[in-house]
Amino acid sequence: MAEYTSLPLILAAEQFAKLPGIGMKTAQKLAYHVLTMPPAEVEMFAETLITARQTVRYCRVCQNFTESESCLICASSAEGKRQSELICVVEAPKDVSAIERAGGFEGVYHVLHGLMSPMDGIGPEQIRIKELMTRLSGDVAEVIMATNPTIEGEATASYISRLIKPMGIKVSRLAYGLPVGASLEFADDVTLVRAMENRNEI
Amino acid sequence: MAEYTSLPLILAAEQFAKLPGIGMKTAQKLAYHVLTMPPAEVEMFAETLITARQTVRYCRVCQNFTESESCLICASSAEGKRQSELICVVEAPKDVSAIERAGGFEGVYHVLHGLMSPMDGIGPEQIRIKELMTRLSGDVAEVIMATNPTIEGEATASYISRLIKPMGIKVSRLAYGLPVGASLEFADDVTLVRAMENRNEI
Repeated sequence: MAEYTSLPLILAAEQFAKLPGIGMKTAQKLAYHVLTMPPAEVEMFAETLITARQTVRYCRVCQNFTESESCLICASSAEGKRQSELICVVEAPKDVSAIERAGGFEGVYHVLHGLMSPMDGIGPEQIRIKELMTRLSGDVAEVIMATNPTIEGEATASYISRLIKPMGIKVSRLAYGLPVGASLEFADDVTLVRAMENRNEI
Repeated sequence: MAEYTSLPLILAAEQFAKLPGIGMKTAQKLAYHVLTMPPAEVEMFAETLITARQTVRYCRVCQNFTESESCLICASSAEGKRQSELICVVEAPKDVSAIERAGGFEGVYHVLHGLMSPMDGIGPEQIRIKELMTRLSGDVAEVIMATNPTIEGEATASYISRLIKPMGIKVSRLAYGLPVGASLEFADDVTLVRAMENRNEI
């Protein structure tokens, strides 16, 4: 006897299953939920996604998501409220949010929208490195590589730094060390070694 | 400094976060993905959900999801290809799929679309028990309670069986016991006790 599932449920589940990190079980659960939502809410959900996709743009300076020509941060920098000579390079828009939330950084950003990953066929051309290079005029004092401390993050940071250094611009990397509030006991070996290497005189 | 996230990303993430089991972190990841999808694919995703919600109906007999008046299973039963005198009561459409996939059941279904759960304010009126009762004519020989073996599943099964038994219709419950292929060692105590109680002569 063939498996029986109604067509609308199958079609909706197939769409959810295309999203990253959503397996078929979760997709079916989400589809089931959508089919029991008030129709007006489903339309709102769907239309919000379409509108968001249509209105989103890449800031022509830093490549972060924005809904206008340039993002709020780059606009502030053009008004002299942020230091445009300090560029922090991150993987994704969520990293900009994280650094802004932490506070204390007064420069501008550059969003790569990905990291180099030869295994997945993502080379330097697939991420926004070219756009970063066109920003590097003589006014830029320092580029801070703030990609994640993963293999891809390291590889991308070192690739970009090799491109920039010959231009005489300072390139730095976020510090490795113990997370604040963490316990030595539970720190992994690599982090401990880095924390030791990067020790500061007090 | 206030957290900075672009508006389209926030709006899309808020919609995803309304879905069950999707937290804010996952919602942001999904929203980010949607904003980088080709616009045509976003429209397809959105329109599939709207269409699915608009076309889905509840089978007027068994309450399962369908796109026509009655579902394929109830239609087969009307043509005499399935035993309409045997009704299997389940919580959700996915349970119908599971039993059909397993094969061997030749009767029809009744989908409750939920289980009674007083803690969550879900009483007998909130699930499709009334619709089940209207199906119970003299032709029905047996009602099989196939709700999940959870507290809510048990409570719902016993509530419904108390309604049906006075009508002189046989009510049964799926057997408890060891899952096939399982190891005694790892079976939980309640399952072991039930498996012992329900032992069969060989």
